[in-house]
Amino acid sequence: MVNVIVVKVGGGLLEDKLNQDAFLQKFSEIASPKILVHGGGKEASDMLSDLGISPVFYQGRRITDEPTLKVVTMVYAGAINKTLVSSLQALGDNAIGLSGADGNLISARKRVNNKIDFGFVGDPVSVNTALISTLLDNGMTPVICPLTHDTKGQLLNTNADTIASVVSSSLSDRYHVSLRYCFEYNGVLEDKTNPDSIIHSLNVKSNTARQLKGEITDGMIPKVDNALKASQAGVGEVIICGIDTLNAPDKATVIYG
Amino acid sequence: MVNVIVVKVGGGLLEDKLNQDAFLQKFSEIASPKILVHGGGKEASDMLSDLGISPVFYQGRRITDEPTLKVVTMVYAGAINKTLVSSLQALGDNAIGLSGADGNLISARKRVNNKIDFGFVGDPVSVNTALISTLLDNGMTPVICPLTHDTKGQLLNTNADTIASVVSSSLSDRYHVSLRYCFEYNGVLEDKTNPDSIIHSLNVKSNTARQLKGEITDGMIPKVDNALKASQAGVGEVIICGIDTLNAPDKATVIYG
Repeated sequence: MVNVIVVKVGGGLLEDKLNQDAFLQKFSEIASPKILVHGGGKEASDMLSDLGISPVFYQGRRITDEPTLKVVTMVYAGAINKTLVSSLQALGDNAIGLSGADGNLISARKRVNNKIDFGFVGDPVSVNTALISTLLDNGMTPVICPLTHDTKGQLLNTNADTIASVVSSSLSDRYHVSLRYCFEYNGVLEDKTNPDSIIHSLNVKSNTARQLKGEITDGMIPKVDNALKASQAGVGEVIICGIDTLNAPDKATVIYG
Repeated sequence: MVNVIVVKVGGGLLEDKLNQDAFLQKFSEIASPKILVHGGGKEASDMLSDLGISPVFYQGRRITDEPTLKVVTMVYAGAINKTLVSSLQALGDNAIGLSGADGNLISARKRVNNKIDFGFVGDPVSVNTALISTLLDNGMTPVICPLTHDTKGQLLNTNADTIASVVSSSLSDRYHVSLRYCFEYNGVLEDKTNPDSIIHSLNVKSNTARQLKGEITDGMIPKVDNALKASQAGVGEVIICGIDTLNAPDKATVIYG
């Protein structure tokens, strides 16, 4: 099977120009077919605030009303996606930016929850792997932003970690997928105050994984959650890494089990 | 040769939800392979004003400084493009949104002008017709927003009428292209105050065409200019129409010569 590397880059790495450039340089050095999935929550929050709209979160997930959906669509599919695409083009990668609506890449269901209305938030239903194959076969690098659609004309906000996870598991039938969550640290840390305390391998079923889930907060919950789920869903390799360990998985955190 | 219909829809038709829906309905009824090119200057101006940035125009063309480029990128590639794509998906069209940077669709040169610095504005240099063919062959409908790139990492603002024109002329080698500029009126009017005074055919070389150019102002100059250029560049059919005449070219204005 052909290798495909799916990289999720967090909004935290994209807000700083130097980090963004360093990340894109490392990403462009990956030779095999690859896919980039990006977030951008921090830039969306800044734009919401510039427009006088207060962002609301619940357990690390944004609540998306109509004005918020418009802003995240502008920031994710517009500002961030096109900046990444044009930067990758300059680095020699034939990047093509996509939301889940483009080519019906990712259809989703609006989330229903008795306790809280998340607004225009979607949970992925299916991934158009044929489209991804067509793009990869033609030498392109899909750059996916965290928006999906319900196929009835409604765009939906979807967690980027989740998108990376479902895209990777959907592709696992025809590719050997290595899914790499790239964030501010070089791996999952045993001690948050010590950047060298990287846990090099994390068994999904182990107490450590369960314990970690209990200890980590906010934006990290979906990340480890999705990494665990992707590993359980048959993704060949799931890694949590930083810019320096993006292309050196053995120095990052490998999720298995 | 296979027919391809390239439709340019103006920002004026997109700002009103009823017009937008009516336009998309008519567009989705086109059976042959097709491409949509959209503008969005009015929505961009509104967003600039919401963010406290004053839009500046020179002869109907926007001057694009860095904050303006970010806003037009958000509005064109984000809000408008993804709304059109998800709406077309709901109508059964497998739409895929693209800027000129995506898949290196349209590379451009930053405009140099001795009299005035247009900022981040680009004039198209080449169109990746192979990418368009790949998408059309796979049953997709490209939806192109008015942004290009210089292949060195810089996004550039480009007039949507110009994009429709260069895409159409580039495709004319391998397709029979019908280029349709769709705007508020059902064709070019002899008398602006009478919507029924449609000029049904306009010879590029005729005095009428030259006269019209002298009489029309602002946003209409690039439209007629680009229609004339596209016709001269070998595009099979160039039409200026409205929603009601989009699929009835004989009732609109046909440019020839």
